[in-house]
Amino acid sequence: MKLNPIHIPLPDWVSHILSEKEYFFPSVAERMNLVLELAAQNVKHATGGPFAAAVFDTRTGRLIAPGVNLVTSSNCSLAHAEMAALALAQQKLGCYNLSENNLSCQLVSSTAPCAMCLGAIPWSGISSLVCGARDEDARAIGFDEGDKPDHWIARLNQRGIEVIPDVQREKARSILQQYLDAGGCIYNG
Amino acid sequence: MKLNPIHIPLPDWVSHILSEKEYFFPSVAERMNLVLELAAQNVKHATGGPFAAAVFDTRTGRLIAPGVNLVTSSNCSLAHAEMAALALAQQKLGCYNLSENNLSCQLVSSTAPCAMCLGAIPWSGISSLVCGARDEDARAIGFDEGDKPDHWIARLNQRGIEVIPDVQREKARSILQQYLDAGGCIYNG
Repeated sequence: MKLNPIHIPLPDWVSHILSEKEYFFPSVAERMNLVLELAAQNVKHATGGPFAAAVFDTRTGRLIAPGVNLVTSSNCSLAHAEMAALALAQQKLGCYNLSENNLSCQLVSSTAPCAMCLGAIPWSGISSLVCGARDEDARAIGFDEGDKPDHWIARLNQRGIEVIPDVQREKARSILQQYLDAGGCIYNG
Repeated sequence: MKLNPIHIPLPDWVSHILSEKEYFFPSVAERMNLVLELAAQNVKHATGGPFAAAVFDTRTGRLIAPGVNLVTSSNCSLAHAEMAALALAQQKLGCYNLSENNLSCQLVSSTAPCAMCLGAIPWSGISSLVCGARDEDARAIGFDEGDKPDHWIARLNQRGIEVIPDVQREKARSILQQYLDAGGCIYNG
């Protein structure tokens, strides 16, 4: 049986956008600006759903890895933006736990994580999560966020993971709406 | 910024084992036997946690894709066995929804899925889930299964996904115990 590796590249346009940027994003607002630009570009380039994310060094604001939703373009239902950003950050740093070696990493996501991405967060070692749009905003355009446990923010807090919700929520929602208006695929399983 | 693709190969020993097998596994018991063999070999080869999974064509029993836990060997906290099997099955079939084109796929997992893998299941399009060991068996050797929603089996059923628990549970538990006894890494985030 021929076994290929799991292989999911980011679209070329991501590198092009990042090549024009500084790599340090000191404030949470600047980090979310980058992530929302990636989400909007993912809609524009039709490379996946209207979602983006990125992992930053919490203290310095250095961008460690970006991610965009690649479900439709990579034929992988697991290729959500948060999963891509976390996997690429771990691959880049060579560790499966982003709190190793005195690291402190922040995951910034254009929309609150679905049940899968939420489940992935404690395993990743990130210290904090920043969200733009809410679950209900993704549901409003037809996406299923899955069965998340009740009080999921409090549960992450109990694990020592800070959650900062509603950062530029309106701008994040407008990108979801643009995707719907453009006839983007609502790809629930 | 140099952006590498997400790239996670299965260990070479998986191909070697599968090259000695038929590709059809008509019964649930035969499917679980294969998955438990992969889990035991993952412990023996020290290529990851004591977990394996595979996606089968439900009707014919054809093996579509195997997966083993690769968290420690691939430096990726998301590289659980179920995620690998689902991603490879979708990549092989060229679709992000394993119920497309009249497909019916079954995910067989050596241990009940953690919160992340559970969240991934509805997005994958599988029709049924077969589990060996239970959450509590993984917890008994120190693994964190995460915050799964209450009544998760009933919730999958509501989505039309059948769940067959406790298939060869004792054999599956014994593999978890072997991993603990061998000093295997308990890699919670």
